[in-house]
Amino acid sequence: MCELLGMSANVPTDICFSFTGLMQRGGGCGPHRDGWGITFYVGKGCRSFHDPQPSANSEVARLVQRHSMKSHIVISHIRQANVGNTSLENTHPFQRELWGQHWTFAHNGQLTDTSSLTLSHYLPVGDTDSEHVFCWLLGELRTAFPKPPLDASVVRYFLQQRCQFLKTLGVFNMLLSDGEYLYCFCSTKLSWITRRAPFGEACLSDADVNVDFGQETTPNDIVSVVATEPLTDNETWHTLRPGDMLVLHKGVALN
Amino acid sequence: MCELLGMSANVPTDICFSFTGLMQRGGGCGPHRDGWGITFYVGKGCRSFHDPQPSANSEVARLVQRHSMKSHIVISHIRQANVGNTSLENTHPFQRELWGQHWTFAHNGQLTDTSSLTLSHYLPVGDTDSEHVFCWLLGELRTAFPKPPLDASVVRYFLQQRCQFLKTLGVFNMLLSDGEYLYCFCSTKLSWITRRAPFGEACLSDADVNVDFGQETTPNDIVSVVATEPLTDNETWHTLRPGDMLVLHKGVALN
Repeated sequence: MCELLGMSANVPTDICFSFTGLMQRGGGCGPHRDGWGITFYVGKGCRSFHDPQPSANSEVARLVQRHSMKSHIVISHIRQANVGNTSLENTHPFQRELWGQHWTFAHNGQLTDTSSLTLSHYLPVGDTDSEHVFCWLLGELRTAFPKPPLDASVVRYFLQQRCQFLKTLGVFNMLLSDGEYLYCFCSTKLSWITRRAPFGEACLSDADVNVDFGQETTPNDIVSVVATEPLTDNETWHTLRPGDMLVLHKGVALN
Repeated sequence: MCELLGMSANVPTDICFSFTGLMQRGGGCGPHRDGWGITFYVGKGCRSFHDPQPSANSEVARLVQRHSMKSHIVISHIRQANVGNTSLENTHPFQRELWGQHWTFAHNGQLTDTSSLTLSHYLPVGDTDSEHVFCWLLGELRTAFPKPPLDASVVRYFLQQRCQFLKTLGVFNMLLSDGEYLYCFCSTKLSWITRRAPFGEACLSDADVNVDFGQETTPNDIVSVVATEPLTDNETWHTLRPGDMLVLHKGVALN
């Protein structure tokens, strides 16, 4: 299994605290020694870091941790390889362009019979089932909607349907974003929390680190974090049920 | 004008030395204050760093400079904005997937009337003429060859023809790679050098740095570097003529 971490916020926000917790699971306190990656959206652009080395030893991970990289959407992934070699091209998150937007995808789980998913517009560069599925999913979306639908909820409904189908092929927890929305699908395990004023203190489960969000935020900030498992042990996280899709927009969970 | 830097090598090679020279031009000794970016190919995967800040002050540039990142193909760009804001999405190199390969593109110059170039498969995320042209060029290639041609020289010939056309729209010096070949088109200014045994010492033009490549290489290494202007002042660089396309493969210039 791999670890997923996502963030959606209404203002550019530093994910350093949550990333510190996640990083510990990459060879520190977890078995996820097969690389890690993170994508930060800044406006319409994004910045990605990928490393096939364990995150707990990674120089690039330390850079990400040390320097405040503020972003309104983040997707991160720590990998324990099951399908595909440990290589840069197999390291999540994966990215493709659709409708003039960068789409970013990370997957936790393992699927069988992905070769039955016929690819169209997008082809994988590496040989993971995850990248194959991402190319298929985005190709399906593009075929159904050559131009972006005016009503964004149509995309959400379409993705949820396709994710429900992918869930029948195995374990499919995923994070997907176009830089505006963060789509989070739960097949087996995904938890989330929304933090807003009054902000309190949070304590990481995996490292001896506390943060007082009250010192780091303004009263209008809304920040949601989603992860394979709760990252803090003194807050109440919501647990998604298998088959649930959570959609976050500017830090807020859409109904 | 912007600065371009490319490298092609037959073994994973550290570009640190050339990058140090290029970086000085990003707000150090050059007027290129509007961001920089670099892509390193490692196998079929690649690692990109983009920063809308001047490279001479960039924390990420220092990371790239300090840590040996070995790669067989590198494309780097330092930007002086003329079209499009200074933002992450407007920072070269740009990237899209075609035929299951990551294609990377950086451009020096300015084109007029790019809106007449009709886009098909790929759409720009930002608003530079450069990204528009890249999307057009890759879309043309994809339309002409839905699958990769067996003879790679067909791609080279096709790209050269399209680049000759783009040259009629303005200044179009560019670097383009699929991770295997490095295509370098000269519209006004591009120089290159191939280094192989016996390796000597090289002195950067823009910084007080020398390197003895004999200490850094093995006798079988072949490394070609291409740049807007020669980066060293004690070696003989080749100057491409307007309209020339140089194609590098494993460090060697193809005929």
